[in-house]
Amino acid sequence: MRSNLNATENPIASTSATPSPPVLNRFQALRQLLLSPDLSFLMEAHNGLSAKIVEETGFQGIWASGLSISASLGVRDNNEASWTQFLEVLEFMADATSIPMLVDGDTGFGNFNNVRRLVRKLCDRGVAGVCIEDKLFPKTNSFIGDHQPLADMEEFCGRIRAGKDSQTNDDFSIVARVEALIAGQGMDEALRRAEAYHAAGADAILIHSKRSSAAEILSFMEHWGQRCPVVIVPTMYYATPTEAFREAGVSTVIWANHNIRAAISAMRDVTGRIHREQSLAGLERDLPTVKDIFRLTGQDELNEAEKRYLPVRTGAHAIILAA
Amino acid sequence: MRSNLNATENPIASTSATPSPPVLNRFQALRQLLLSPDLSFLMEAHNGLSAKIVEETGFQGIWASGLSISASLGVRDNNEASWTQFLEVLEFMADATSIPMLVDGDTGFGNFNNVRRLVRKLCDRGVAGVCIEDKLFPKTNSFIGDHQPLADMEEFCGRIRAGKDSQTNDDFSIVARVEALIAGQGMDEALRRAEAYHAAGADAILIHSKRSSAAEILSFMEHWGQRCPVVIVPTMYYATPTEAFREAGVSTVIWANHNIRAAISAMRDVTGRIHREQSLAGLERDLPTVKDIFRLTGQDELNEAEKRYLPVRTGAHAIILAA
Amino acid sequence: MRSNLNATENPIASTSATPSPPVLNRFQALRQLLLSPDLSFLMEAHNGLSAKIVEETGFQGIWASGLSISASLGVRDNNEASWTQFLEVLEFMADATSIPMLVDGDTGFGNFNNVRRLVRKLCDRGVAGVCIEDKLFPKTNSFIGDHQPLADMEEFCGRIRAGKDSQTNDDFSIVARVEALIAGQGMDEALRRAEAYHAAGADAILIHSKRSSAAEILSFMEHWGQRCPVVIVPTMYYATPTEAFREAGVSTVIWANHNIRAAISAMRDVTGRIHREQSLAGLERDLPTVKDIFRLTGQDELNEAEKRYLPVRTGAHAIILAA
Amino acid sequence: MRSNLNATENPIASTSATPSPPVLNRFQALRQLLLSPDLSFLMEAHNGLSAKIVEETGFQGIWASGLSISASLGVRDNNEASWTQFLEVLEFMADATSIPMLVDGDTGFGNFNNVRRLVRKLCDRGVAGVCIEDKLFPKTNSFIGDHQPLADMEEFCGRIRAGKDSQTNDDFSIVARVEALIAGQGMDEALRRAEAYHAAGADAILIHSKRSSAAEILSFMEHWGQRCPVVIVPTMYYATPTEAFREAGVSTVIWANHNIRAAISAMRDVTGRIHREQSLAGLERDLPTVKDIFRLTGQDELNEAEKRYLPVRTGAHAIILAA
Repeated sequence: MRSNLNATENPIASTSATPSPPVLNRFQALRQLLLSPDLSFLMEAHNGLSAKIVEETGFQGIWASGLSISASLGVRDNNEASWTQFLEVLEFMADATSIPMLVDGDTGFGNFNNVRRLVRKLCDRGVAGVCIEDKLFPKTNSFIGDHQPLADMEEFCGRIRAGKDSQTNDDFSIVARVEALIAGQGMDEALRRAEAYHAAGADAILIHSKRSSAAEILSFMEHWGQRCPVVIVPTMYYATPTEAFREAGVSTVIWANHNIRAAISAMRDVTGRIHREQSLAGLERDLPTVKDIFRLTGQDELNEAEKRYLPVRTGAHAIILAA
Repeated sequence: MRSNLNATENPIASTSATPSPPVLNRFQALRQLLLSPDLSFLMEAHNGLSAKIVEETGFQGIWASGLSISASLGVRDNNEASWTQFLEVLEFMADATSIPMLVDGDTGFGNFNNVRRLVRKLCDRGVAGVCIEDKLFPKTNSFIGDHQPLADMEEFCGRIRAGKDSQTNDDFSIVARVEALIAGQGMDEALRRAEAYHAAGADAILIHSKRSSAAEILSFMEHWGQRCPVVIVPTMYYATPTEAFREAGVSTVIWANHNIRAAISAMRDVTGRIHREQSLAGLERDLPTVKDIFRLTGQDELNEAEKRYLPVRTGAHAIILAA
Repeated sequence: MRSNLNATENPIASTSATPSPPVLNRFQALRQLLLSPDLSFLMEAHNGLSAKIVEETGFQGIWASGLSISASLGVRDNNEASWTQFLEVLEFMADATSIPMLVDGDTGFGNFNNVRRLVRKLCDRGVAGVCIEDKLFPKTNSFIGDHQPLADMEEFCGRIRAGKDSQTNDDFSIVARVEALIAGQGMDEALRRAEAYHAAGADAILIHSKRSSAAEILSFMEHWGQRCPVVIVPTMYYATPTEAFREAGVSTVIWANHNIRAAISAMRDVTGRIHREQSLAGLERDLPTVKDIFRLTGQDELNEAEKRYLPVRTGAHAIILAA
Repeated sequence: MRSNLNATENPIASTSATPSPPVLNRFQALRQLLLSPDLSFLMEAHNGLSAKIVEETGFQGIWASGLSISASLGVRDNNEASWTQFLEVLEFMADATSIPMLVDGDTGFGNFNNVRRLVRKLCDRGVAGVCIEDKLFPKTNSFIGDHQPLADMEEFCGRIRAGKDSQTNDDFSIVARVEALIAGQGMDEALRRAEAYHAAGADAILIHSKRSSAAEILSFMEHWGQRCPVVIVPTMYYATPTEAFREAGVSTVIWANHNIRAAISAMRDVTGRIHREQSLAGLERDLPTVKDIFRLTGQDELNEAEKRYLPVRTGAHAIILAA
């Protein structure tokens, strides 16, 4: 039986030398990032463009952030956009790249049945994994408020099991995000939930904290041992040296929202400057060219394709990117 | 009969002093920008976030760029995204702002009938105006190639008339974009087409040029007189002093793609730096905070609304933005 | 200030005679159906086609059924389709018709904030009203199971108030659906909730029952008096004479799912017959013609428009519907 | 490397006996329908519900008709719905069924580049094949007008080649629809185009006719020989005995629009009757039950899943379908 490889599941590494490592598709590549003993990094993206920049820069994986995607759309991180609007953003991101993407799936957008639909759709779109958190729909961003209610542990385990049973790619990953520390329920509860989620089939645990110190994260790592891969998001404890995470046995670090924050800053600057100066003259040289946009979105591929598929005629399209 | 005011059509200026100017909705505001003797400016945005930044900076109007929106989605400026995917982006942009938006409607996405549907949908979404260009679907970006074929003039006039006949808000504007200069067909053809489009009902003419000098634009202005408002896009002739456009009687200048270009540059920088440094420590202070994202997307309004609409309970959500 | 009339908000009755009744838009028309002393009827539709048939038949309003729309999409009535996928179906339905539509909004698709977004979007799309029920997201169809949990009454009142505060058309209606009888919580609880929802701003109460007798509905009517309009859905107590509802002072009866059920039956028949007979010969005369489809979807309007907007050429499109 | 099997690509025949035939996925199943020496039949569907009915009736494949889907949405068969709105309907249809689906792809929704995107998306959604016709975007239904312009043959061959080069499932099929007979260009032109499209990679030829006699279809079959499978649509020449097509060597017959026509007829009847009678009493017994809708959309699977994934609680959902 033939496989249903879509373009984004093509091998992401070419076999050039002998002996070459096995070629992995995106689902396998994310799984390997999670399982490998090395510390891995996922970089935030929020649309096809930023996803492409993450790939071009050399990152091995993308974090599709719910906060960033919401902000990019201009809405709040409270499930204001529907899950299919979110899915459409993810599809553009997956289409624009070939590295694996781990998606911030919030609470799974409802109960176990909504998780099932989500997981099947993500597999169809070539998304390699999803992270779901043990809170309730509609969600509130974890950095807001102090004692958000958590989901019933058994009910959340049902979401994980339903998701795993629904994946249509064997290598799809589900990461279970434990919010117990942020909700003020303590380390024991965090460990109890992590254990239950792991037993329910989660491929990795994301332990989240909003303290400026990584102490509780490192403490979790110590208690957890290496029962399964652990993912962290050092947005608040950014000052902790990355080496500390490596030594603690963390599997994967997510840089969670820095592209959107950089974009906000830059757009404010350029918009403000143009508004004040009523002119482009002073800033043209500081910006990437329009041709650079064409290059980023693959205009040269289309030029080649036009030669291949369009009848010859005078005045055919052509762009010299090097010009 | 009551009006169907949606949130984004609320008056955009409050009447504080006596005697106050008449309060305009977004459709009227764009019309006034086009008609006023002053030189007006529209700043590019490509999603809800950038639209909000354009508004916060003080611009009076937004240019929803087809190139920028396509690039943001990660696709080419060749009608790869469908017109309803494009429409959804526009809806998020309109929802996130209260200033008027002029939309880059490419060729109208087909024939006169497609233009009719587009115009009705834009009116429903609170978009104040659309610009359509005299080329063929699927479009190619005007800065690519040298002699792109133009639409039959009469057929394009039909698109304009059909659009005007379909608008469900009396103040909706249609701007007709003349590509004759870029297509190498000369000034006479440009003027002939501008005249025909004006006669067909276009509320303004966008005369486009890809030369680095504004000479042909200024020549057009001279020949055109003041028959109707003229819009320009000085992406290529950016070095021309804005005063020259003012003196020539230009109505509106579009700064067409500078937010997306600034975002590309900033995201490349921050992604590259995080990739190299494997740490956030060095850049945290250079970026807007996560709370800034919450503020931009209106978290404080939601906090207030929760007090109003949610039953009181312990541990309710709260975020202190000033913290 | 000019209004943002979209096509579907055009007056639905033309003023021909003197003195003519006031001309109502769709929002006003639904309000009048609810408020008028006469018994009104809403007929189920689930897509643009069935909506158009409901209008052509002479009904004054449409019930956009969640069960029927879900079934039509091929999914379960458990919020498997996202709220924006549902919204898109509603938009096609509103575009295809000019009579008012009351939408089955399930639970409002989340909390008060999701209701706010829903109501704004419905107003934009020309939908005249929404019915929300006092259950939890994701919903289960009311005819399934016996003791579905109800929403907290206060929390549900918050959804109603939030919805009313968010409507962008003054005549938009929110109908609050009381599930207490179906959930086995008794008449007192049903009346208590109806009173609270009415006080929270609901424009009408939908009292639902799944018994085959209308006794509890008629009892509710007696206790309720005429505090506000009451809507009923006699799917299960279909044998009760309609006169009984009229005498009891019911405002509006919803025929809730009979178009989808008729379509299922007919499609099974024709598909089965074609499968058995491997031929169309025997059934062609029993079916509406292809031209009838063209007529239903307005092909003649497009033919007229082509004459108006397309340049004259040989071989132009033309269809003679009478042929 | 593992395959990306989605649910709809699961084997459609279980191997129960020995020796069993090879198990085919949906892509392979359509290919086999086209290639097999037996006459095959595809039955029209236009949404998830009708697709499910086609499968339950025993048909081996579905024809996703552009005319029917447009009519169902309430729009004209002139590319009024966008290609992604159309794609969303197809996704619901594919999700609701497991038999293969051939999609009416109109002209491919633009040029070769639009065809490329379409084909990739169809493969992702589990759609087994697409038919594209040699006309221009936006399309007009073939039964309207007399001399619709055809696409340039070479340009259309480019669309076919681009589509074939883009499929991400090796067994995806592209059927090229020849409109030359309908456009009044004669048999020689039809054969010339069929030959060119076959050479460009089309997996089958759909030869279309709008005459009430099948004479030109049978003549085409004679001239064509068996160079590749031929598909026909006897909407207008319905009176021709199916045996004539079998003898002529036709591969596949499409019953193109009979479910939508049956649904129109039935909905008109039931809506008219309810409008006249203001009662359901007389027709309840003639309609499928509400429980039948639950069964059609798979409620029993959800009931089972709730037992598996939801924590036990009192008052759990349960529906006894047999009741």
